[in-house]
Order: sequence, then C-alpha cells, then structure tokens
Amino acid sequence: MNITLEQAEKVIAAAKKKATDIDTKMNISVVDSGANQVAFARMDGAWLGSADIALKKAKTARFFDMPTGEIGKLSQPGEPLYGIEHSNGGLISFPGGVLLKNKNGDIIGAVGVSGSTVDNDHTVATAGAEAL
Amino acid sequence: MNITLEQAEKVIAAAKKKATDIDTKMNISVVDSGANQVAFARMDGAWLGSADIALKKAKTARFFDMPTGEIGKLSQPGEPLYGIEHSNGGLISFPGGVLLKNKNGDIIGAVGVSGSTVDNDHTVATAGAEAL
Amino acid sequence: MNITLEQAEKVIAAAKKKATDIDTKMNISVVDSGANQVAFARMDGAWLGSADIALKKAKTARFFDMPTGEIGKLSQPGEPLYGIEHSNGGLISFPGGVLLKNKNGDIIGAVGVSGSTVDNDHTVATAGAEAL
Amino acid sequence: MNITLEQAEKVIAAAKKKATDIDTKMNISVVDSGANQVAFARMDGAWLGSADIALKKAKTARFFDMPTGEIGKLSQPGEPLYGIEHSNGGLISFPGGVLLKNKNGDIIGAVGVSGSTVDNDHTVATAGAEAL
Repeated sequence: MNITLEQAEKVIAAAKKKATDIDTKMNISVVDSGANQVAFARMDGAWLGSADIALKKAKTARFFDMPTGEIGKLSQPGEPLYGIEHSNGGLISFPGGVLLKNKNGDIIGAVGVSGSTVDNDHTVATAGAEAL
Repeated sequence: MNITLEQAEKVIAAAKKKATDIDTKMNISVVDSGANQVAFARMDGAWLGSADIALKKAKTARFFDMPTGEIGKLSQPGEPLYGIEHSNGGLISFPGGVLLKNKNGDIIGAVGVSGSTVDNDHTVATAGAEAL
Repeated sequence: MNITLEQAEKVIAAAKKKATDIDTKMNISVVDSGANQVAFARMDGAWLGSADIALKKAKTARFFDMPTGEIGKLSQPGEPLYGIEHSNGGLISFPGGVLLKNKNGDIIGAVGVSGSTVDNDHTVATAGAEAL
Repeated sequence: MNITLEQAEKVIAAAKKKATDIDTKMNISVVDSGANQVAFARMDGAWLGSADIALKKAKTARFFDMPTGEIGKLSQPGEPLYGIEHSNGGLISFPGGVLLKNKNGDIIGAVGVSGSTVDNDHTVATAGAEAL
C-alpha cells in the first residue's frame, strides 16, 4: 500500500490550514511507504532550516513506524536508544512526524512538520494525517 | 524578490498539467531565490531517482542563473567547466531546470523537472515557468 | 507489490550459483520496490569495493526502472544524461543492475551485482532475476 | 582470521530463527574482521530504519572489539567517550552489536541486530554469534 500524490496533497492542504488557524508558518513533508518524498511545501516566511527537519521527521516516523516523539523519549541520555539520531544520515526524534494510514489502517507513508514549537508541529502533522 | 508558496504551487500545477498532456510522469521541484526548496511533487509512478535530480536541477539553475542545459554544454570533457557537477553537493547539468521570473523580469526562483527525456523535462519545466 | 526476504534470498542463491559456474566472486545486493536493501552477500574473496557498487547498481536500476547499463549509454560525455551519477548520493551506471519482477510483471525490487567484468556482472544479475 | 560467507549465513539463519521464536522482526548485518559487510537480511515487515542501525552496530562492535552496549555506557554525557558516535560516519552505541569469534577465540567479525527493544536485539545478536 502506498500513498498517491493526490492523497499527499490533501495532507499538505489540511496541514497548511491548521498551521494558519494556529498562526504558525510550517514546512510540511510527505513521504511514501518506502520513505521517499512525495510532496513538500514551505509556507511563506517559514524557517529555512525546518525544511530538512520536516523531511527527516517524516522519514523517521516511517523508518520506525511510530510518531517521532516516541523515539525521542527513548533516545535521551541514559535511555535505551541514546544516539540513534546518528543513523540513516540523520534522524529527528522530537515531535512533528506521524504515520499516514488509509481507511483500512495500512501504513501508506508519513508526514513531518517543522516550524514552530514541537507541540504545534505535532498538532499540524496530526491534522494532516487526519485528512486521509 | 522571492517566490511565494502560492506561486510555487501554480508552477507545479502547470507543470503537472503539461506532463499529463504529453503522457509523462514527472518529479517537479521549485526553489526560491535563495535556492531553498519551496514545493515539490512526485507524480504517481514517476521514477524514484528523479526526485533528487529535479531538486538538483532547480538548484543548479538558480546557482548560476541559467537553464541547466547551458551549464551542461560547458561541463563536457575539454570544456571550461568540466567537473563542475562535483560542487555544491552535486549539480545536474542537463536540461530540465529553468529560472522563474516575475512579471518585471526579476529572478524569484527556479523549477527543476525530471522523469522522462531531457527534452520532455525541459518542456514541462518551461510550462511551469510560464505559469507565472 | 514488494519483494519478500524469501524471494530476495532465492535471487541471491541463484546469483551465487551462476557466479560460481562462471568462476567469479561477486557482491550481490537486493533492494525492494522502495529502493531499500533487503538482502546482501559478498562471496569469499570478492572485491571489498564492490559491495557499495552492488548496492548502488540495485538502487540505480530501481530509481529509473531500467537496467543500469541503459543509463550508462545516456550518461556518456555529450549524451543527454551526462553527469547523472552525481545525483541520489551516487549512482552506478554501468551494467550489473537489473529489475526484479513477479510473475505478473510487477516491479518488486532490483538486484545489483559487482565483482568481475561488467558483462559477467550483468550475466549474474540476470540469473538472479530469473530465479523469481 | 576472517569470517566466510557460509559462516555469515549461518549467523543470519540462527538470528532469524531466534527473532521468530521471540516474535520479533529484525534487520541483521554481519561484517568481517575488516568491518566490511559480508551478509545482510531484513525480515519481512522489519523497520526500514533498522537496516542502517544493524550495520552500524556490527561495525561499531568490530571497530572497538566490544559489544556495542559497553561503548554506550562510556558515551553518556559526562563519561569519557561522550560524542564518539560522531566518528566513522556514525556509530550506534546501544546494545545489539556483538563480536563473532571462531572456536579458537579469534575475532573473525561482528553481527548487528536492530528491530525491537535493545534487549531483544542483543538476544538475537547473541544467538547469531553462538551459531559459530
């Protein structure tokens, strides 16, 4: 099962709407089930450095099939996955990356959002995911 | 002067329409005047490896303010820019990357297209650029 | 559609057998339809540097859905795709990478082989692909 | 002394069996005494991001001739090897990488396993190592 471009654009549109509603400017990246980017948008005035973070959040969520924030809990000093961010050309392990599933619950990709607080990033990513 | 996301999405929509008209499946990347990606779309079934090429074409066009194919003429063996592709984390110097200008002729970004022959790539990129 | 590990191991077993039959020592890599590695084997005494080449051949074949040697014809000096090897973190565009398809003809991955002449590499990769 | 492909495949087979016994899906990588990959397998449904981690665990174990978890104790904030993960293109310093030795006790390579908790990863890697 893999996401289509039409679905990815729906995710980005919903994420942009939520970002605007909460008065933030976001970078939004959508990857497919193979962790390859399908669509991306940087809202006007959003941080330049957040483009790569959005992509890495989307990839990280799909790489381990969980929200990025869950990995971050496990990668703190003294925790089991400390230092995991050094793998795969760089992971991002704080919130803002969530899985994308179809109506049957199959994983079809992931969305990563970056540009505000991690709470806002996660809120916007979740709004994107719920558009499917 | 810099491209807005709304303009970048217009470029991508026009490029997608042209790609469909000529029966191709494309990866389309738009960068701003700072050569940072603003928007990206991979059409369903388009080559996975062309995503990076589309981005590199857009960056290359803006890095040197000319269509990518012009650089490729100068980077052949024996020519003045031989090997320039090794710079900037990898350039792509064949056709498919063109500049984006506003109505006053100011450069506001670039679009890169990859997924078919270089002639088709250039045709689709040009269609995107003309949407502005 | 995506390759299973069992299918990937069948591909590697068939490639190893062919490599032995023609008295060569090969590195053999299998990627899935998302261009992510599924299985790998380096035969005893095979070139160390060919492990990365085998993987890049498999990825390159899947990135553009054609045998790697076809890309190499187009990437020579003066040809349309000159310099394409600079994309995607490094491509390999000489023979030895071929697509893997299921009985319905769907692409499910690719195999890359490196360790001898490119003709031998291609022969061994093809033997691997025919095991499916 | 160096591992053969036949031995590496024995390690992977034993690791796969243990992974199945404890109901996990693993990425398993075997490197030789030169820290170069000999064999790799990703079990169906195993995390995509764990392939690179499995390889890095195997390399890390051989790079410093100790189980990866031992290095992780030393690389915590305030400890002597803090930040060592930045070397060698990225190390992984949590459990799941163990040395491979022949019957004489000579180091002939290492195995890295990733795909579950670090305890499970270590258990599966150890089962692989004991197959020799």
